[in-house]
Amino acid sequence: MIKAGIIGATGYAGIELCRILLNHPKVVLSGVGSVSFEGKKISEVYPALNGICDLVCQSTDEVIENSEVVFACVMHGLSQDLAKKCADNGVVFIDLGADFRLDSANDYKEWYDSDFKHLDLHKRAVYGLPELYRNDIKGSKIIANPGCYPTSIALGLFPALNSGLVSTNGIVIDSKSGVSGAGRGLSQTAHYPNCNEAFAPYKIAAHRHTPEIEQTLSKISKKDVTVLFVPHLLPVNRGIISTIYAKLEENVSKSDVRKAFENSYKNEKFVRVLDDGNVANLRDVKCSNFCDISIHIDDRTNTLVIVSAIDNMVKGASGQAVQNMNIIFDLPEDMGLCFIPTTF
Amino acid sequence: MIKAGIIGATGYAGIELCRILLNHPKVVLSGVGSVSFEGKKISEVYPALNGICDLVCQSTDEVIENSEVVFACVMHGLSQDLAKKCADNGVVFIDLGADFRLDSANDYKEWYDSDFKHLDLHKRAVYGLPELYRNDIKGSKIIANPGCYPTSIALGLFPALNSGLVSTNGIVIDSKSGVSGAGRGLSQTAHYPNCNEAFAPYKIAAHRHTPEIEQTLSKISKKDVTVLFVPHLLPVNRGIISTIYAKLEENVSKSDVRKAFENSYKNEKFVRVLDDGNVANLRDVKCSNFCDISIHIDDRTNTLVIVSAIDNMVKGASGQAVQNMNIIFDLPEDMGLCFIPTTF
Amino acid sequence: MIKAGIIGATGYAGIELCRILLNHPKVVLSGVGSVSFEGKKISEVYPALNGICDLVCQSTDEVIENSEVVFACVMHGLSQDLAKKCADNGVVFIDLGADFRLDSANDYKEWYDSDFKHLDLHKRAVYGLPELYRNDIKGSKIIANPGCYPTSIALGLFPALNSGLVSTNGIVIDSKSGVSGAGRGLSQTAHYPNCNEAFAPYKIAAHRHTPEIEQTLSKISKKDVTVLFVPHLLPVNRGIISTIYAKLEENVSKSDVRKAFENSYKNEKFVRVLDDGNVANLRDVKCSNFCDISIHIDDRTNTLVIVSAIDNMVKGASGQAVQNMNIIFDLPEDMGLCFIPTTF
Amino acid sequence: MIKAGIIGATGYAGIELCRILLNHPKVVLSGVGSVSFEGKKISEVYPALNGICDLVCQSTDEVIENSEVVFACVMHGLSQDLAKKCADNGVVFIDLGADFRLDSANDYKEWYDSDFKHLDLHKRAVYGLPELYRNDIKGSKIIANPGCYPTSIALGLFPALNSGLVSTNGIVIDSKSGVSGAGRGLSQTAHYPNCNEAFAPYKIAAHRHTPEIEQTLSKISKKDVTVLFVPHLLPVNRGIISTIYAKLEENVSKSDVRKAFENSYKNEKFVRVLDDGNVANLRDVKCSNFCDISIHIDDRTNTLVIVSAIDNMVKGASGQAVQNMNIIFDLPEDMGLCFIPTTF
Repeated sequence: MIKAGIIGATGYAGIELCRILLNHPKVVLSGVGSVSFEGKKISEVYPALNGICDLVCQSTDEVIENSEVVFACVMHGLSQDLAKKCADNGVVFIDLGADFRLDSANDYKEWYDSDFKHLDLHKRAVYGLPELYRNDIKGSKIIANPGCYPTSIALGLFPALNSGLVSTNGIVIDSKSGVSGAGRGLSQTAHYPNCNEAFAPYKIAAHRHTPEIEQTLSKISKKDVTVLFVPHLLPVNRGIISTIYAKLEENVSKSDVRKAFENSYKNEKFVRVLDDGNVANLRDVKCSNFCDISIHIDDRTNTLVIVSAIDNMVKGASGQAVQNMNIIFDLPEDMGLCFIPTTF
Repeated sequence: MIKAGIIGATGYAGIELCRILLNHPKVVLSGVGSVSFEGKKISEVYPALNGICDLVCQSTDEVIENSEVVFACVMHGLSQDLAKKCADNGVVFIDLGADFRLDSANDYKEWYDSDFKHLDLHKRAVYGLPELYRNDIKGSKIIANPGCYPTSIALGLFPALNSGLVSTNGIVIDSKSGVSGAGRGLSQTAHYPNCNEAFAPYKIAAHRHTPEIEQTLSKISKKDVTVLFVPHLLPVNRGIISTIYAKLEENVSKSDVRKAFENSYKNEKFVRVLDDGNVANLRDVKCSNFCDISIHIDDRTNTLVIVSAIDNMVKGASGQAVQNMNIIFDLPEDMGLCFIPTTF
Repeated sequence: MIKAGIIGATGYAGIELCRILLNHPKVVLSGVGSVSFEGKKISEVYPALNGICDLVCQSTDEVIENSEVVFACVMHGLSQDLAKKCADNGVVFIDLGADFRLDSANDYKEWYDSDFKHLDLHKRAVYGLPELYRNDIKGSKIIANPGCYPTSIALGLFPALNSGLVSTNGIVIDSKSGVSGAGRGLSQTAHYPNCNEAFAPYKIAAHRHTPEIEQTLSKISKKDVTVLFVPHLLPVNRGIISTIYAKLEENVSKSDVRKAFENSYKNEKFVRVLDDGNVANLRDVKCSNFCDISIHIDDRTNTLVIVSAIDNMVKGASGQAVQNMNIIFDLPEDMGLCFIPTTF
Repeated sequence: MIKAGIIGATGYAGIELCRILLNHPKVVLSGVGSVSFEGKKISEVYPALNGICDLVCQSTDEVIENSEVVFACVMHGLSQDLAKKCADNGVVFIDLGADFRLDSANDYKEWYDSDFKHLDLHKRAVYGLPELYRNDIKGSKIIANPGCYPTSIALGLFPALNSGLVSTNGIVIDSKSGVSGAGRGLSQTAHYPNCNEAFAPYKIAAHRHTPEIEQTLSKISKKDVTVLFVPHLLPVNRGIISTIYAKLEENVSKSDVRKAFENSYKNEKFVRVLDDGNVANLRDVKCSNFCDISIHIDDRTNTLVIVSAIDNMVKGASGQAVQNMNIIFDLPEDMGLCFIPTTF
């Protein structure tokens, strides 16, 4: 049994990790760390866990000491020293935050106003999007688990960009995320009477996931990609829909597109390319590790519309983190992750 | 592997059974029956099942032929002949409808305006509330799976009535159910703009679950119990909260109550009696087979307030049905049912 | 034009008062007070008011100085000195908080842990439930605007208690309120992922509105009434449903009940007694000053079930406050309050 | 007083017209027509109207006979003969459906699979978007009230296109509409458990509002505009957000854009151009006739992002229809339409 610990266990990604890891046949949850609730049972914070998990929240150090793999769900800026401590102790480190996602210290500085502290760790960190970087993940001990929006977008665009079917110019990404994406921390944004029966974009063309999205898309296309990314806050608990608009290159046929998508994902358990006539809906991936993708061609404007749906807390965070863990520890990649989406 | 078939698989209880049975380590889903969608893949009706289950909807007879156990999710009145056919074929029959829940043909006539057709089957049918009737279930081949409201109410009141702590007179039950309880069939009741941001009771003191509730409570108390039961439609997808008001008998102390509840359920995996100071919330049982119960005493009016929370589609329907199957087939009772509630 | 000011204008009751008063043909909004947002435009806090109201938030004193009537939407304990200041300046004071609702200093001490400061003011304060106390309100300059739950409950029970149709013993009140009732202040209770798709009671038999409810019901019945009151948090923005259970006295007929309700409210514009066969729904009173009441008799248990629906922010707070103002200033009681409920 | 009748009064646009017209100081609601509910009180269909409007649903002919202006809320294809009858009787006809919106019979044939029946009427019909076509509306007796999406989009893009600030090529419009847009008719689309906690686009690049949108944008730009329009179904009752992406022409500055928007709407009561730093939210226009517009420039991709928010049932349907009526009957354009948005 792998001893897995969670730092920041009482946040939403942390508690979702608990839900997944407690179900995992090869994992024992070795510790849950929480600064705010140290000394309290996690089931006091989340009564859903009553009788299922009675672990008491510990300090960061205690969690690291007792674990072979540590998942960190903390604010950007805080993961780097945790990663160092894990590296020094031979503990696999899977970061659900942003500290190791960007290759460029400049980008990190520009978008997060922070600095790279341990350059060697940054070099060894692997961007943990299994469908694209499975082989790199296998041998790594530091994983930058992708952001929720970037996951939905990279998986949605990968086949089209990788096969050169669409222009790398003028890509527009209109994403919509459920409120759990805003976290457990209190804010007017997530205050019920303020966001229920409401809807709007936010951080228009200014969201911190932008450089991460562009980095991945650029790697796929092997040229610099600049996108226009506009996230919206959706009055649902879970899920992300990214509606992606990309100009088709000349002479690309509908069947070229379909083939590219089907070939890209034919061996991927967690990516489902929908048949023509269907539209990806976040309802159909809820509480699961699936990414559903539907593809639509508008002949009138020669545009490919890609709809990519994930559960922001599973494939967009904790499920993908466990998928990375499975790869690193040589377990079947879908172990503990075969949640069937709840249909309602 | 047990071959399990579902009749009425495309209704909400049916699809929830799919979700559970597809996950069950000792079951193979042998057939899904649907009158409305015969010949169509179930994943066309519920795209959530894409790539997970590609069974094609069959006729009732085909399902029965290929199964060792059949779950029926059909309108009342339709199960009796299905039960007969299963009995004749040696197939275990678990009815999620109302046909076998009532002992009295008169009650059935009065509340459902239908008749008992196969009296011998009615005699052999067992009311499948495992926490109360586990032993009877074990040897049975026809199970009347309890209604959603009755499940939450019987589990909530059992310890108090069984120990004679509350009066059997004047019990008031104010229940609230999520909209999935109204089923997949279209109606203004479940039309989004009509029930979102709305709330009201319905079938006040006239809901068909009333005689079922009273039958169980009467058996527990060994005297005739008449209750006032008022259900409400709650604008959420899943879950039931029953708030139950019962007069305490004289000289019953707070600790008597607590002891009765804790003793009743100390060996029950799926019933969680919450500690003092906590209140059962449907959020904390969502997508799980738990029934959470909190108990509250109002000294000013000498009333016991019991709050009982279930997921109406799991413990209130399909989860409990599988629990019954596990018992009948001598499997661990919680097999395939250890869903951790989603916290959001 | 009456100069009306609001203290605590940026809370939910305050902003709802803005919405109503800005529409009122005989009122000019003379000032909006806010401690948290002093110096800021109210339309910056609530962009819904952009271009409609550009008032800048002021201090309490400024608001009082410029007003003939002041509405106070502040935490209990803070209204008493405001009332004093208004009284000293000849300004009508309508308190949407709890400070003047209870006649008994002991009750106030017990439930709010605070003291009466200005006994003379408490004596002059009138409980502003117009349908019951219209005449007293007319001559008053200090109004205790009723709580939201108590409004729905007092209006619901008044005809039955006033006509002696139900027992004053054993009344059970199961109420459900939309989240705006929890106010604009941040809390896990109102954090979207925590209360969306969730439901539970809270402060069971311990809510501060209990003594206010009992005080009004006791006055109506002319004897001491003790009730069991259990509020629930409902995942909708607005509205309260109170489901009220009261034992019918002997020999009370269905038509006695109907007559009592219809006679009580036949001249009341804002109370609608629904015809038999209908059930009050908070949807049908949303954004309006109506209280809808439906009455249901359960012969099996000889119980009267009263369903009372209001918009907690209108008839349960700001609308009723303006209704009180209209009475005091000798305006038509419904002036500025004829909002037709939004049907969705 | 103007005698106004509604045909199709029991649909959502119809009942919203009731809500508005019953409030209008210069209108008497002369008749409500409904095929499905003829002979029934409208307050039986919508109990929200209890005691406010007790009109009995009539036949189409009865409504026309008693009205000076008729609002038609019927399926496309059914309005043309109604318009003829009104024209023959000298009754002003305001069509909330699609029959008179398109200038081209070919477009109508292509997108609605129907034919123009009365060509003279089509010639006389005016597209009722007051902010753009006020003068034409004034003298007209047949109004094609714009679709909900087209209203939000035309108002959002008008200043940019009219001033030539953006390219007419490559415009992408990602719109999201509340469920009331799907109407009162039952469908799985609007079935609560199916659309609550769900989200997806629909009719991608194939929605019937596309030719209407393009017709208006082409008129504004004086050249043919083809857009990519993708609507989404949003789990809220009311409101539309259109997020519009348009490439800025060279050398267009941020202040050029702001000036164009502010100048275009400086005299428009119902269009609010938000200050920099703010984002239009459907919450802030709910239940009102406002269109809120925020403008955002992405320097990285030289794109103008316009966010346009309306209440789909008010400015997107019934409110705008009354605005048109006001213009035709020479009343103040905002009469009966000064609803302040509900903030929650």
